Amino acid sequence: MPHSRQRHIPKHAVETPLGLFLWGGQEKFDRRREVLETLSSNPIFSKGEVVYASLARKDVWTRTALQSRELIRIYLTKKWPYRTFMDAIRMTDWMLPVQPQFRIFMSNLERQMSDEQKAIWIPKAERFEIFGSYCQTELGHGSNVRGIETTATFDKENDEFVINSPTVSSTKYWIGATGVWATHGIVVARLIIGGMDYGNHLFLTQLRDLESQRLMPGVEIYELGPKAFQGMLGTDNGALQFHHVRVPRNQMLMRNAQVLRDGTYIKPKNEKHSYGSMVTVRALMAEITAHDLIRAAVTAYHYTTFRKQFKKSREDSHAEETTVFDYASVRFRLLPLLAQATTLAIVGQNIKRAYDDYTATMLSTGDTSQLEDLHLQTVGAKVYSTEITGKGVETCRIACGGHGYSALSGFGRMYAHAINAVTYEGDNYVIGQQVPRAILKHYKAGTYASLPSLSYLSLLSDTNTVSTPDLSTPSSWLHPTTQKWALELRLVNMVRQHISDTSAGIDTSYTSHALTMAHSDYVYWRSLQSVLSQISTEPYYAAMNSLSTVFALSIIFTPHHPSLAQALPLTQGQLSSLRTAYNDAITDMADNHVASIIEAWGLTEYEIDSALARSDQTPYEALLDGAKRSEMSGEKMSHLWAMMVDTRKMAGRIEAERKEGKAKL
Amino acid sequence: MPHSRQRHIPKHAVETPLGLFLWGGQEKFDRRREVLETLSSNPIFSKGEVVYASLARKDVWTRTALQSRELIRIYLTKKWPYRTFMDAIRMTDWMLPVQPQFRIFMSNLERQMSDEQKAIWIPKAERFEIFGSYCQTELGHGSNVRGIETTATFDKENDEFVINSPTVSSTKYWIGATGVWATHGIVVARLIIGGMDYGNHLFLTQLRDLESQRLMPGVEIYELGPKAFQGMLGTDNGALQFHHVRVPRNQMLMRNAQVLRDGTYIKPKNEKHSYGSMVTVRALMAEITAHDLIRAAVTAYHYTTFRKQFKKSREDSHAEETTVFDYASVRFRLLPLLAQATTLAIVGQNIKRAYDDYTATMLSTGDTSQLEDLHLQTVGAKVYSTEITGKGVETCRIACGGHGYSALSGFGRMYAHAINAVTYEGDNYVIGQQVPRAILKHYKAGTYASLPSLSYLSLLSDTNTVSTPDLSTPSSWLHPTTQKWALELRLVNMVRQHISDTSAGIDTSYTSHALTMAHSDYVYWRSLQSVLSQISTEPYYAAMNSLSTVFALSIIFTPHHPSLAQALPLTQGQLSSLRTAYNDAITDMADNHVASIIEAWGLTEYEIDSALARSDQTPYEALLDGAKRSEMSGEKMSHLWAMMVDTRKMAGRIEAERKEGKAKL
Repeated sequence: MPHSRQRHIPKHAVETPLGLFLWGGQEKFDRRREVLETLSSNPIFSKGEVVYASLARKDVWTRTALQSRELIRIYLTKKWPYRTFMDAIRMTDWMLPVQPQFRIFMSNLERQMSDEQKAIWIPKAERFEIFGSYCQTELGHGSNVRGIETTATFDKENDEFVINSPTVSSTKYWIGATGVWATHGIVVARLIIGGMDYGNHLFLTQLRDLESQRLMPGVEIYELGPKAFQGMLGTDNGALQFHHVRVPRNQMLMRNAQVLRDGTYIKPKNEKHSYGSMVTVRALMAEITAHDLIRAAVTAYHYTTFRKQFKKSREDSHAEETTVFDYASVRFRLLPLLAQATTLAIVGQNIKRAYDDYTATMLSTGDTSQLEDLHLQTVGAKVYSTEITGKGVETCRIACGGHGYSALSGFGRMYAHAINAVTYEGDNYVIGQQVPRAILKHYKAGTYASLPSLSYLSLLSDTNTVSTPDLSTPSSWLHPTTQKWALELRLVNMVRQHISDTSAGIDTSYTSHALTMAHSDYVYWRSLQSVLSQISTEPYYAAMNSLSTVFALSIIFTPHHPSLAQALPLTQGQLSSLRTAYNDAITDMADNHVASIIEAWGLTEYEIDSALARSDQTPYEALLDGAKRSEMSGEKMSHLWAMMVDTRKMAGRIEAERKEGKAKL
Repeated sequence: MPHSRQRHIPKHAVETPLGLFLWGGQEKFDRRREVLETLSSNPIFSKGEVVYASLARKDVWTRTALQSRELIRIYLTKKWPYRTFMDAIRMTDWMLPVQPQFRIFMSNLERQMSDEQKAIWIPKAERFEIFGSYCQTELGHGSNVRGIETTATFDKENDEFVINSPTVSSTKYWIGATGVWATHGIVVARLIIGGMDYGNHLFLTQLRDLESQRLMPGVEIYELGPKAFQGMLGTDNGALQFHHVRVPRNQMLMRNAQVLRDGTYIKPKNEKHSYGSMVTVRALMAEITAHDLIRAAVTAYHYTTFRKQFKKSREDSHAEETTVFDYASVRFRLLPLLAQATTLAIVGQNIKRAYDDYTATMLSTGDTSQLEDLHLQTVGAKVYSTEITGKGVETCRIACGGHGYSALSGFGRMYAHAINAVTYEGDNYVIGQQVPRAILKHYKAGTYASLPSLSYLSLLSDTNTVSTPDLSTPSSWLHPTTQKWALELRLVNMVRQHISDTSAGIDTSYTSHALTMAHSDYVYWRSLQSVLSQISTEPYYAAMNSLSTVFALSIIFTPHHPSLAQALPLTQGQLSSLRTAYNDAITDMADNHVASIIEAWGLTEYEIDSALARSDQTPYEALLDGAKRSEMSGEKMSHLWAMMVDTRKMAGRIEAERKEGKAKL
């Protein structure tokens, strides 16, 4: 086993050809480096010495609010682009209250405001003269925006909208950065004019006074309380109720629909704008989500290549203990995840790039013809990347055994921030149904050829077009044609089942999830193949090819849901050759390529923030050091010592009292 | 849809025939009721108003330490049996520092001390005059106790052992209740006499002074710091180093091995005692683990039968929204988990009972012949029940959507305390290998007939003994013979693969996990069938039969690992009838039986402790109420308001400074 595998943890970003490729090119790499150097050298953003998990929630939030202030200062003085600012928020590893400002507040102003409105509000937002949030979800309705109950009634006399929360369930809930921080919210409410309900529209609503931070009249806000797993400690989520709050007519976002002075409602020219904001956030999620899993996998790699436990060969009693990473039980959990996470990151970059290109075109030409395809792509990417990442982070933690359960390992924090993504921006089981819906629609209309990701539907019409490839030897599974055949076949089988269920009126809301995963398996596999073909002359091709094989065979042989295995009928002999091919691929990656992939990602100590991956301490030293710094160590709890001493005397006291009682009788 | 499904959440334990059966009989039910009434009426144990997730960790620990004191007082004054005391700890939902006293400290004194030693120490422990802990795991070694480095060297001259931690990695780590609380630890250390290493033995070692709570000379202890997900807030885990700490010879636990005054080592008569303590804890885990999942499933049931979202039928625009529980996406996630959790609880009770019977026999007759079988049973039960429970709790949370992520839902706390069980008391991937090891051993020796849980191995010798049952209709899958055939067939296929891998020298540490799950599927299914046959005349048989069908078909059709699906070769037609049978079983349970099963478990508001299941508030009211009580609501963060106001003026200030700078130039 190569000893060089016990890698050093870098303090600074180190540039390598494969690293540049993985990070998405020089520009993105340089941005990462700049953010990293800026934050890691600024004590306000220090990591390691402050253990959030030990603190009261409000104390953590206080720190993240101060970090937000400092980040605004840096952004303003360095004139950072938004993207750099957002990357810096990500790197603090906490969702700072300033997080919605560009991610959802400004992006909605940009896309939904008229030019006149933008001229007023965009400068305020980009200069942080107002703190923004996006107020959509209610206690009673999340994914189903049609159920939103908040109303915005046009008051013609005063040329204002009156925003109101008619019920408990209409309370805006989960509104990020709004429990304490935000001064302005984009409120999603049903527009009512003269008793007519025109459905949801957006209203820029002032929530707090700019000079005092006090709530505006009629605005009632509470902070939501803690989240599961100490998640999102830096986000002060708000519960908002509006009691006839007045908003000037010109603060309805009027790029598309409009309300005129006399109450005339002008319909939007293009209905598609309505899901623009979801597509924006999901395209971003497609790009960034996997990095949470990459970090967890890198942490687990560092730890499991350090720790030794048991001896693999019981015969050799003198041999050193085996490095934990060399057990199949570790390799078969970590390596598929590293391969999947890297694939998610690479393909996700391409999806985000396609979205950015679309936005640029759309803003200049108004052409929205690609939106449906992008919507489908980003929904699939959101479900697929959050599902794999959320569960994968936890698999990495568990593969590290007991020490993974220490908060100092960082895994708990990573999971808390990764797993919520399966729920927000549309619950995966709910929005995932949009993929099968698109499949059905285009299959029935015969229009699937127009969407590249649905081309496999042609196989439904004629099942004999693709003959079974040779599957008798393990090496046959290495051919892309074999992998394509397997991924397409099971997908087509699942689509066929879905069509039959739908015709029979069966509720497919559960099975759709597996179908969306199988669809995305195929889409991501195909994208990765296309990327591979473009780098076939690069020196790092061998590493990427090994990773690609592990990706492909892992999703075929150990799929995300058992129904995917059931939809791919293989003989025991074919399964056996697949199994051998997969085992060989894992061994090849473990022995020859994983070290260079880890090195290429080159995550620094600051980015990882784990006692299991420090640049100057072994995991054991760092864990012991963490215990020495515990807020409950030494004499720090000595105010309770007398209570404990006294408790141990209780039995004697109670017995004495009993005897005394009896004596008295 | 029956409106009665929206159940009331009881405040007190309500006795029903099915409830008595599920809770394991009148005695256990009454104990639950007594503990529940005692705790829920005592303000020190109040729930709801104190939100642990908002507090600093040491403040939560302070509360649990005071709860421990109160619980000791109640135990002493009411003369509670240990079991009641332990149940009360469980019901506080937090692992109090007093938790190891009976669970592992006393049970080791009982089993490992000589009668003379017991006479001295047991009364002290049961009267809480000493606070105990069990010090086994080290930084460098967890599951592999052979790697333990702490030494206990016999000093003949002084008739003492000298306990020492020679390295950083020998630091005792994760030692429960020892960071602040414990006065005495049972230390696992390598016994050294005259330079000879006799392997691990147990030494009762005083850690802190009884009158001052200060550390004893040579004992260095740190509290470990926080755990992932705010897990185990009530446990002060310790990191311990021993610097030549002296322990009198008569504090080595000498029921089995002994060291005489002259240093003579007397071997234990029976080596099997060495894994007695693991078997004890695992038998307990077999019994109690599933209750974490039952609670999560009950919480999710209450919430999803309350919440409405979307309309199932798009045609009917006037219909009320659909209750979330009525979507397949919710039913197919929750109901299999409720069926599995209930099965785990029922079968787990039987395993614990068998262990208790064994202990009684063993203590009176010395007969340890059943220990191997019990060891195998408890290892399988530990892996199986913790795996299903840990992941299942999180599935319940995610099925509740966004509000499941609120700490007020309680799911975060439930997961934090359930998932660590896949790691402690032996990592599931490590100890799970003992099941395949036993299979191989008994298969090779031809002794499998002696262990009931391995009887299926006879099928390996002659594959033709069981012919394929009729699988053409969905109803055929309801027959126990069909279910048995399927579970046995895939298990035998997996064993065959395992034997072949082992012969080929392939590392099976990964694949063993799936095999252990398949083995346990079969063992639990068989036990459940046996239980069913005993209650076939009871009025609640129909509900239990429905649950049993969902259990059986869920583990066959949606198994715990894709390799289990691959090991059961079915034609598409057979799969299709299985699929239909499973769908029908879920519908039957959802429409006709789940309400009575939930009612029979009858979990009270106090036991659930979730804003999603309050007796006098809807989930929405309770969530909003939680926000109103948030420690960051209203003016509670007003000390930071000026900072936020000032931050919004930063841009103006920086620009003014720039202009001024330019003006000066």
